[in-house]
Amino acid sequence: MSLQRYEHGGGIREGIALDFSVNTNPLGMPQRVRDALLANLTEFERYPDTRCDALKTALSERLNLPPNRLIFGNGASDLIMRVCAALRPKRVYTLEPTFSEYGRCVRLFGGEIVRSASECELAFLCNPNNPTGALLPPERITALLELGVIVVLDECFIDFTTAPSMRSSLDRFPNLLILNAFTKTYAMAGLRLGYLMCSDESLLNRIAEYGAEWSVSVPAQIAGLAALTEPRWLERTQELVRRERAFLASELTRLELAVEPGAANFILARSEIPLYKPLRTRGILVRDCSNFSGLDEHYLRVAVKLREENETLINTISEVLK
Amino acid sequence: MSLQRYEHGGGIREGIALDFSVNTNPLGMPQRVRDALLANLTEFERYPDTRCDALKTALSERLNLPPNRLIFGNGASDLIMRVCAALRPKRVYTLEPTFSEYGRCVRLFGGEIVRSASECELAFLCNPNNPTGALLPPERITALLELGVIVVLDECFIDFTTAPSMRSSLDRFPNLLILNAFTKTYAMAGLRLGYLMCSDESLLNRIAEYGAEWSVSVPAQIAGLAALTEPRWLERTQELVRRERAFLASELTRLELAVEPGAANFILARSEIPLYKPLRTRGILVRDCSNFSGLDEHYLRVAVKLREENETLINTISEVLK
Repeated sequence: MSLQRYEHGGGIREGIALDFSVNTNPLGMPQRVRDALLANLTEFERYPDTRCDALKTALSERLNLPPNRLIFGNGASDLIMRVCAALRPKRVYTLEPTFSEYGRCVRLFGGEIVRSASECELAFLCNPNNPTGALLPPERITALLELGVIVVLDECFIDFTTAPSMRSSLDRFPNLLILNAFTKTYAMAGLRLGYLMCSDESLLNRIAEYGAEWSVSVPAQIAGLAALTEPRWLERTQELVRRERAFLASELTRLELAVEPGAANFILARSEIPLYKPLRTRGILVRDCSNFSGLDEHYLRVAVKLREENETLINTISEVLK
Repeated sequence: MSLQRYEHGGGIREGIALDFSVNTNPLGMPQRVRDALLANLTEFERYPDTRCDALKTALSERLNLPPNRLIFGNGASDLIMRVCAALRPKRVYTLEPTFSEYGRCVRLFGGEIVRSASECELAFLCNPNNPTGALLPPERITALLELGVIVVLDECFIDFTTAPSMRSSLDRFPNLLILNAFTKTYAMAGLRLGYLMCSDESLLNRIAEYGAEWSVSVPAQIAGLAALTEPRWLERTQELVRRERAFLASELTRLELAVEPGAANFILARSEIPLYKPLRTRGILVRDCSNFSGLDEHYLRVAVKLREENETLINTISEVLK
């Protein structure tokens, strides 16, 4: 029996005391989510509701969006795959460096990533962007939409900021698809729950078709419903991220790292001395950015965590750089 | 808040006391699975191991199969979709009536279902078959494999029978893909955990690529690991199904229903009087088979459940037919 081995995540977490490589909410999973899972364990035996009706009703009320403009998936990554499977776009624009799954899924269905927005039929934009944390000016997104490009706008990190979602533009642009997830906001990465919003119902249904039957598990649906009832979650999260991001950015700057301006719950920084390995030796995992296009081993991405953890990171970097 | 609504499965389960429409293990979820989930709730916050390493090691030991001949998915249905996405077969053979997802996924990627095995490039076979419960003669499967057809053999119900898996033929036939899942055998339909076996590693890796990143959730991996430690689970299950299937088949025959011969944990039967609606009125849900190709409202599929439940079904059918 190897639950023990599971806990080590296939070896990756061996010897790691603090993980700054993962961008989930530093508050952890809401208590109501834990309680709902514990209270509903017997439900795990049953097939999931394929339509996610209860969750759809609750989220559409929260987002003030008609329920037929919303579909769910097995995490945002399932929905990225479905978009590519359903639309099979040939020429796709992305803003590098960005999340590598866009390019991977596009290529699986015969498409390629292009560097110029004027020749694409579809664009994957991430706002705020992973790994830079940069917010895109809304007019940049609108310009693409006005050209008739299908824009998949990944807002998986937007709830950590006070920047507005483009949701209010869904009506105006039937070619706008907005992606979000419970994964990061509610620290439930293991449960897999993403959603996609669009005002063009026939486009949305075409994408939904490419999902496997019963793709959203019972624990994910139960957790999603419970997460939405947690009081003041987004406010508490945004307040914490704002404060701790400022602290981390200022301390990293003091240590002479070049900090990318941004607004997400993570920070991209450049260090003269590559930090991934020396931090790893000291039990701290950061995201080595050398596999992002245009970045190299001098770049690291760190999650914004709780004050004590952030202090440990800063002290350890300071020790390495001494 | 609508956990209440969730429990009604989007309305479908309203007023249903006994559900014979779902073919999961009548023993329910193993106690060790429940215990492992409760003990590891904190793990739900973390990203799943994309390679499912611990689970792969445990299952490959159980199946006596090298770990590189095994991939996991978000339920068997995720793997059916991936096979179609990766191989995009044009002409696909199935033995109707059968599970409708094969045809749906084939058509999504531009293929069609053909009625003659000689003109296909790929076949989806289900053994024992859903909804008939019939076991396929192994020589029928072998004949297709010898023609060079890629055979996806769905053995999701085989662990309920004492019939042998075709696993021992994987070495001989690199064009054989065997599908199975924890869903039915361990009554964990809500958790979504399927697997695919093949001796052609490059074919298997090509199919794996079409999975969304992190597609197998943490609860599914934890539950799968724990399920494999439950002592004598398959033996207890097979003994129960053998006994209760014989009981149900003989009672249905006594009530003058035509019972299809088979070996699975469900029974397909034909009744002169359609039974779906009158049973539903009395709080019993059976599978109405009118949407299976070649069947109509006279056919019903019932799961083999515990003796007391099976007796209630028989008594209620008897009452309806009076």
